[in-house]
Amino acid sequence: MKGNTKMNDKKVKNIASKSENLTQWYTDVCTKAGLMDYASAKGFIVYRPDGYALWEEIMHYLDKRFHELGVRNVYMPTLIPMSLLNKEKEHIKGFAPECAVVTQGGDKTLTEPMVVRPTSETLFCDYFKDIVHSYNDLPVKDNQWCSVVRWEKTTRPFLRGAEFLWQEGHTLHETEAEAREFALSILRVYNDLGRDMLAIPFVMGKKPDSEKFAGAVDTYTIEGLMPDGQALQCGTTHYLGTGFPEHFGIKFLGKDNKIAYPHYTSWGVSTRLLGAIIMIHGDDNGLVLPPKIAPTQVVIVPIRADSDPAVVEAAKKIEDSLKKLNIRVTLDLSNKTPGWKFAQYEMKGVPLRIEIGPKDLAQNQCVLTRRFDSSKSFMSLDKIASDIPTELDNIQEGMYQKALKYLNSHITEVHNYDELKDVLTTNKGFAKMMWSGDSEDEVTIKKDFNATPRVMPFDQIAFDYKDCLTGKKADKVIYYARAY
Amino acid sequence: MKGNTKMNDKKVKNIASKSENLTQWYTDVCTKAGLMDYASAKGFIVYRPDGYALWEEIMHYLDKRFHELGVRNVYMPTLIPMSLLNKEKEHIKGFAPECAVVTQGGDKTLTEPMVVRPTSETLFCDYFKDIVHSYNDLPVKDNQWCSVVRWEKTTRPFLRGAEFLWQEGHTLHETEAEAREFALSILRVYNDLGRDMLAIPFVMGKKPDSEKFAGAVDTYTIEGLMPDGQALQCGTTHYLGTGFPEHFGIKFLGKDNKIAYPHYTSWGVSTRLLGAIIMIHGDDNGLVLPPKIAPTQVVIVPIRADSDPAVVEAAKKIEDSLKKLNIRVTLDLSNKTPGWKFAQYEMKGVPLRIEIGPKDLAQNQCVLTRRFDSSKSFMSLDKIASDIPTELDNIQEGMYQKALKYLNSHITEVHNYDELKDVLTTNKGFAKMMWSGDSEDEVTIKKDFNATPRVMPFDQIAFDYKDCLTGKKADKVIYYARAY
Repeated sequence: MKGNTKMNDKKVKNIASKSENLTQWYTDVCTKAGLMDYASAKGFIVYRPDGYALWEEIMHYLDKRFHELGVRNVYMPTLIPMSLLNKEKEHIKGFAPECAVVTQGGDKTLTEPMVVRPTSETLFCDYFKDIVHSYNDLPVKDNQWCSVVRWEKTTRPFLRGAEFLWQEGHTLHETEAEAREFALSILRVYNDLGRDMLAIPFVMGKKPDSEKFAGAVDTYTIEGLMPDGQALQCGTTHYLGTGFPEHFGIKFLGKDNKIAYPHYTSWGVSTRLLGAIIMIHGDDNGLVLPPKIAPTQVVIVPIRADSDPAVVEAAKKIEDSLKKLNIRVTLDLSNKTPGWKFAQYEMKGVPLRIEIGPKDLAQNQCVLTRRFDSSKSFMSLDKIASDIPTELDNIQEGMYQKALKYLNSHITEVHNYDELKDVLTTNKGFAKMMWSGDSEDEVTIKKDFNATPRVMPFDQIAFDYKDCLTGKKADKVIYYARAY
Repeated sequence: MKGNTKMNDKKVKNIASKSENLTQWYTDVCTKAGLMDYASAKGFIVYRPDGYALWEEIMHYLDKRFHELGVRNVYMPTLIPMSLLNKEKEHIKGFAPECAVVTQGGDKTLTEPMVVRPTSETLFCDYFKDIVHSYNDLPVKDNQWCSVVRWEKTTRPFLRGAEFLWQEGHTLHETEAEAREFALSILRVYNDLGRDMLAIPFVMGKKPDSEKFAGAVDTYTIEGLMPDGQALQCGTTHYLGTGFPEHFGIKFLGKDNKIAYPHYTSWGVSTRLLGAIIMIHGDDNGLVLPPKIAPTQVVIVPIRADSDPAVVEAAKKIEDSLKKLNIRVTLDLSNKTPGWKFAQYEMKGVPLRIEIGPKDLAQNQCVLTRRFDSSKSFMSLDKIASDIPTELDNIQEGMYQKALKYLNSHITEVHNYDELKDVLTTNKGFAKMMWSGDSEDEVTIKKDFNATPRVMPFDQIAFDYKDCLTGKKADKVIYYARAY
C-alpha cells in the first residue's frame, strides 16, 4: 500500500483502500468486520453472527410487510426431482448449467437424480395443483425463507456464491391485472426496504426481454449502483403469466363457471443485499452500517475507566437508558485502549460512538461521533434518552441522502455512441438512453463495453426521439451499465 | 369405519378414529387440517402455512430464550465435502447410511462428492478452528435455523422424514463443567418450551450409551409420551467433550498460558415437535392446538349473520377488541353454515370458538366453546377484553395438565420380567426400572418387546436394589419404552 496522504487518514492499516482497490477492500471488510468466513468448499461461506444479524433485520422487516399483503410462510423441499425441474422448458434451460445434482441417497444410487433447489417455481406449482380448484382458493400468497444452491464459477462473498440465503414468494391470482399489480406491490416493498432499512436508493423498473427471469413474461427489478459505477440487481419480481400453471395442470373454476389457469408471480431478494450495504456505505476504515439494521447501533467507550469509577458509572447509566429505549448498545469496558476500540468499532461499522471521560463528566456531557461522516458533537447527559433516537434517525437519513446523491449524479443522459462510450468506460454509472426496442443495441454495447441493459425505469420520460446507436425511431427509456 | 356410539360423536366423518387407528388418524389430521402436503419426491413434504406457523412460534420462543443465554445465529453451508464429514469416525459411522450425496455441480462431475448436511458439527468445527485462539474468544455460542436431509426409509409427516427443519446450536467452552452446564441449560429451555408453548410435559434426563448421538460423550434428552404408549425423543443436547476440537485442530491459549482444546456442545429440536403436538392433543374431530402456538387462537362464528346486521356488528366489535389485545382472531363471515364452520375450525384445532346470534345478542352475551374439552359457557359481551386472555391461559394450562396426567399415569415401576412385559406389551408407556449399567438388559428387551432404554431421569431415586432382569446389583433408574 502506498503511504500517501489519503492512506495516512486510514485508522485501520490492514485493509485495502476502497478507492484504489475496491475488490480487495470489499474482501477485507467482509472478513475483518466479522461478517463471514470462507467455508472449506469453494464458493460457500459461513454467515457469522454480525453478518447473519443484518439478514435477520431484513427478514423481520419483510415478514411484517409481506404479512400486511396477506402473504404467509411455507417451506418446500430442498431437493427437486429432475423430471419436475424439466417441466417448464425455458426455466430448466436457464438453470441447468448451475445445478448441484444428488445422485445417491443413503447407500443407493437414485433411479432419478435430484437437484438441490436453485429456485422453487417447480415445487410451488407441483403443490399449487393440489390446493387450487376454485376461484374461492385464490389468491394464494406464499413465501419461503431458505437457501438456494447455484454452481457459480466466479464467486464473491454475498454478491455471488454457490449458495445464498433468500426469500422466494410465489402467488396465484384470478387475473393478469391482479397478478401484475401484486408483483409491483412487492417491488415497492423492496424499494421501501432500501429506503427504510438499508439506506439504499434503487432505480425501479422493468427488465428488457433479454434480462428476464427464465420463464417469466415480465421481470420487474430494483437496481442499485455500486461505488465503481457498476449496477447491482438487488431484487426482482416476476409476472409469469399462465405458462407454469399450464405445464403443471393448475386450474380453477372461475366465477363465470369456466375452467381457467391462474396467473402466477414469483419474487425474491437475497443476501446479495448485504453486499450492496457493504459496498455502498463502507469506507477506508471499514464497514459503515445504517442504524436500522446495525447489530450494534451505539457503542459506548469510556475514557480512563480504570482510574475513574465515576466514568464507569456514568457510562453504565447511558447504557441503561439506551437499553430501555430498545437501542442495541454495547458498553466496552475491556482493558483495550480507547484508540484500539475506536478502530475496532469503526471497522465493524457501528453507526454512533459515545465517548465519556472525566473531563466530559465534569461538564455533564459526552462526545458523539457519527460513523458515516466522522462528525463529532457534544451532548448533555440529560439529553441521552430524548435525543439519541433522533440522532440515529438523522444518521439513517443522512446515509440515504448521501447514497441518493451518488446515484442521481451517476445517471447520465446519452444521445450518441461517443457519449455512451464516455459513461460506460469511465465508471460513471448508468447511461440513460433512448431505445427502439429491438436487440441490435445490446449486441454492440455488450461487445464494445461489456455493459447490459439494466432497467427500463417506470418514469418513461422520453428526452430524444431516436435510438442513440441505431438511429431508429425510439420511444423507450433504458438504463445501461456494467453490472455485477 | 364402524358406526358405534363413539363414532357417532365424531363431527368430522372423513378422518379415522384416533383410538381405533392412530396411524391413519395422524395422517388424516396432518393433511386435512392443512398442515402439510406430500411433495412428489418420496419422504419429502410441503410445510403449509398453518403447519409452518407452528414452527414459526417455536422459532420466536427459542430465539428469545437462546439470546438470553448469549447465543447468536449464524448460517453454515448446505453442502459438506465428504472429507470433512469423515474427520470424526464415530460421527460419520452414525450418519453415512443416511446421506444424500451430490456428485455433480453445473456441468462437471465433482472431484470430491459433497453431502447435503444431515447435521453440521463438522462445518461448525471447521469454522471454529479459524476464530478460536485464546480464552478471550470463549465461550462461542452459535445457533442456526435450517433444514437437514437424512435418507430415511420409512417416513411419516413431521415425525420422520427425508428432510426436516430444525435448529442446531454449537458452543465451545473453556471447561467441561461449563460446557455440561450449558448443555443442561438448553435442555431446560426445551423443557420450558414444552411447558410454556406446546402444553407438553417431558421426562428429562440422560441417554444410556447405546442411544447417544454419534460422537457425543453424553446426550441429554427430553422424551415425550404419545397416546399409543410409545415414547418420542423430542429434543437432545450433547456434551461432546474435546474429541471434535482435537480432530479439527481447534485450540486456545488458556488463562494458564497453556494450549488446550475447548469443550464442545451441540443441541437441537426439530419439526418433529409438530408431530408431538398433533398426536398428544388431537382428537376424533381433528387437531387441537394450545393457544400459545395456534395460528388462529379464537374464531368468531356469527349465527344468522345474513338476516341480522346487528349480529355482524357485534361480531366485528368482538373481533376488534381481541385484535387490540394482539389475539390472533378470525371472524368467519362466509356464507357457509354454522355447522360447517364449527367442524372446519375444530378440524383446524382453533382453541376457542365464540358464537353469537340474535338470542345471545339480546342478552348481551356470547357462547364460548373450548376446543380441548368441548366445554361451553356464556360470557357477557362487556367482559370480552378483560376475560378472553385469561380464558386462553386457562385452556393452555388445562391442556398441559391433561397431558401431564396422561404422562404420569403411564410411568410404571417394574420389579421383574413379568411386570416389565406387562407394561411394554400393553401400551402402558414407560417402564421405570432399576438398571445395573451394563447392556445385557438391552439385548433382551429389544428382542422380546422391541423396546429401548429411553432416558435415565435426572431424579435418580432408587426404588429397588437389583436389576429387574439380570438380578445384578443396580443403582440406576432407567425408563424403557417402545419408541418412534
